[in-house]
Amino acid sequence: MTAVPLAQRNRFELLAMEAVSDPVLDLLASHASCRSYRPDPLPPGTLERLMVAGQSAPTSSNLQAYSVVAVEDPARKEALMALCGNQRMIKECPLFLVFCPDIHRLHYVCARQGYPFGAAFLEMFLLASVDAALVAQNVATAAEAMGLGSCMCGSIRNDPQAVIELLELPPGVFALVGLCVGYPAKPLEVKARLPIETILHHERYSTDDMESGVHAYDRLMAAGRTYDGRRVSISGEPDTSRDDSYGWAEHTARRLTRPETIAASASLRENLRRILEAHGWSFQ
Amino acid sequence: MTAVPLAQRNRFELLAMEAVSDPVLDLLASHASCRSYRPDPLPPGTLERLMVAGQSAPTSSNLQAYSVVAVEDPARKEALMALCGNQRMIKECPLFLVFCPDIHRLHYVCARQGYPFGAAFLEMFLLASVDAALVAQNVATAAEAMGLGSCMCGSIRNDPQAVIELLELPPGVFALVGLCVGYPAKPLEVKARLPIETILHHERYSTDDMESGVHAYDRLMAAGRTYDGRRVSISGEPDTSRDDSYGWAEHTARRLTRPETIAASASLRENLRRILEAHGWSFQ
Repeated sequence: MTAVPLAQRNRFELLAMEAVSDPVLDLLASHASCRSYRPDPLPPGTLERLMVAGQSAPTSSNLQAYSVVAVEDPARKEALMALCGNQRMIKECPLFLVFCPDIHRLHYVCARQGYPFGAAFLEMFLLASVDAALVAQNVATAAEAMGLGSCMCGSIRNDPQAVIELLELPPGVFALVGLCVGYPAKPLEVKARLPIETILHHERYSTDDMESGVHAYDRLMAAGRTYDGRRVSISGEPDTSRDDSYGWAEHTARRLTRPETIAASASLRENLRRILEAHGWSFQ
Repeated sequence: MTAVPLAQRNRFELLAMEAVSDPVLDLLASHASCRSYRPDPLPPGTLERLMVAGQSAPTSSNLQAYSVVAVEDPARKEALMALCGNQRMIKECPLFLVFCPDIHRLHYVCARQGYPFGAAFLEMFLLASVDAALVAQNVATAAEAMGLGSCMCGSIRNDPQAVIELLELPPGVFALVGLCVGYPAKPLEVKARLPIETILHHERYSTDDMESGVHAYDRLMAAGRTYDGRRVSISGEPDTSRDDSYGWAEHTARRLTRPETIAASASLRENLRRILEAHGWSFQ
C-alpha cells in the first residue's frame, strides 16, 4: 500500500527524529484511511488471518463480548451502503466487516449454566463496546500489514435498527463500527493530528497547552486547504467561501453544533439509546 | 518479550497452517497480557513513540475525542493501584497510561468559535469511547513491538469519581482503560480464545455454532486447569473444588450473575452512569 504523506505529516516528525526503523511502528504511523477500492478479490484465507489478529486483542475478563459479521455479498454491501450515508467505498470494497458488542452469547452462557444475568448496567455496554473496538483496531492493523487498505466506518450507527434487521442481530448485539477492507484504488494521504502536547498529559490533566495546540493544528489544516469544497453550512446555504479563517476549529465546532453533519441521519443517532434499550441493552 | 505458548494456543493453529511469516501478524497473534514487571526504566523517547502510534489510529470525523494521561510518579501509581482492585502490576510497571474519552476539548472548540455544543447524546459518549479504545490498542501494539509487555486495565473504571479527582480530569473527560507498560518479569502465557466460528458470522448473525463453540472452549479451558484456585464462589464460602465441570462457561456465568467479581467494587461500577452524568456526559 503506497501512502503519500502530506507536507503536514507532523505526527511523523518525532519518529523521523528518533530514526526509528521498526516495521511495526512504521506501519502504525503511516496509517491513512482508504476511501476508494479496486474490485480485486482478496487472497484466500485473508478473512481468517484478519480474525486471528482480531481475536488476539485483549478482552475484559476474557468475556469476549463481541462478534464480527463479514459481508461480501454485493447486494448486502449495497444495502449497508445505503444505511451508512451512501459511502460508495462500502459497496466497492470486497470485504466489509461489522464489529458488534455482543452480550447475547453471555446471556446464553448464564442460562446454560442456570444463573440469572446480573450485569445489566452501563458498565457492561461500555465493556462490550471497548472489547469490540480493540478487535476492530487489531483487524485494521493486520489488514494494512497485508498490504490492504482499510477505513473504519462509524456511519454504521446512522440507522442502528435497520442494521440490526439487515444483519439479523439478536437482542444484546448491535453494530458499533464497520471496516472496509480491500486494495486501495489510489495512493492514500496521511492526515496530521493535534500536537502530542495537546493530547498527552503528565501525571494529571492539564489545559495549559490546549489553546496553543488547537491554534497550531487549526492553522495547519487551514493552510492545507483541507476543507475546501466541504465547509459545513450554518446558514442553510452552501458555504463556498475560501478565506483561510476556516480551519479545524471552525469545521469541528460547526459539526458539533449541527451533529447531523457527522451522522448522515442525526435524528436516528439521537435515537441510539432508545433503539438499544429496546434491543437488550441497559444504561442504568 | 518471550511468549510461552500454552498447549491450548488454538488461535494460532490457523496462522501456522497458513505458514504466515509476516512480522506484524506474528506480533499481534502472540499478544499476551503481562501482569508482572521488572523495575527497569524505559528507554528515552518511549512514551513519545507510543503516542505517535496511538495518535495514528483512526478517529471519528477527525474529532480526536480523547486524551492520554501518563503516570510515572510512584506515589500516584500506588494511589491508582489502590483504586484498581489493588493490582500490583500498576505500581510495578514504570509507565501507566490512562486513556480518556474527552469532549472537554470539543466543548472548548465550540465556545472558542462561538457555537453552542449540540452533540450531548449517547452517540457522542460512544464515539469518544471508541476513539480512546482504538488509541489504546495501537499503543499496546507499539509497546509489544518495542519488546515491552502491556496489560489493559478495565479496573480503572472501578471507582470513576476517585480517578477523576486523582488525575484532575475536567468535566467531559473520564478514564476508560488503563495500560501497564514495562519489561515483563517473567515469560508470558498466551491465552486461547473462543473458536473463530463462534465469533465470526457470514452475511448475517447466526447462533448455529454457539453451543458447539462454547462447549469446545469450555472444555479446553477446563482441561488447562485455568481456574484452579480462583473459582468464583456463589455460596459465600470459597469454592475449592477441583472437578473438571468448572470451565469457561461456569466461570463466566458466575461472574456475570455476580458482577462484583469482575469489578472489584461493583457497587461503584453500577454507579458509572450517575457519576458520568454529573461529570459532563449525556446518555440521552
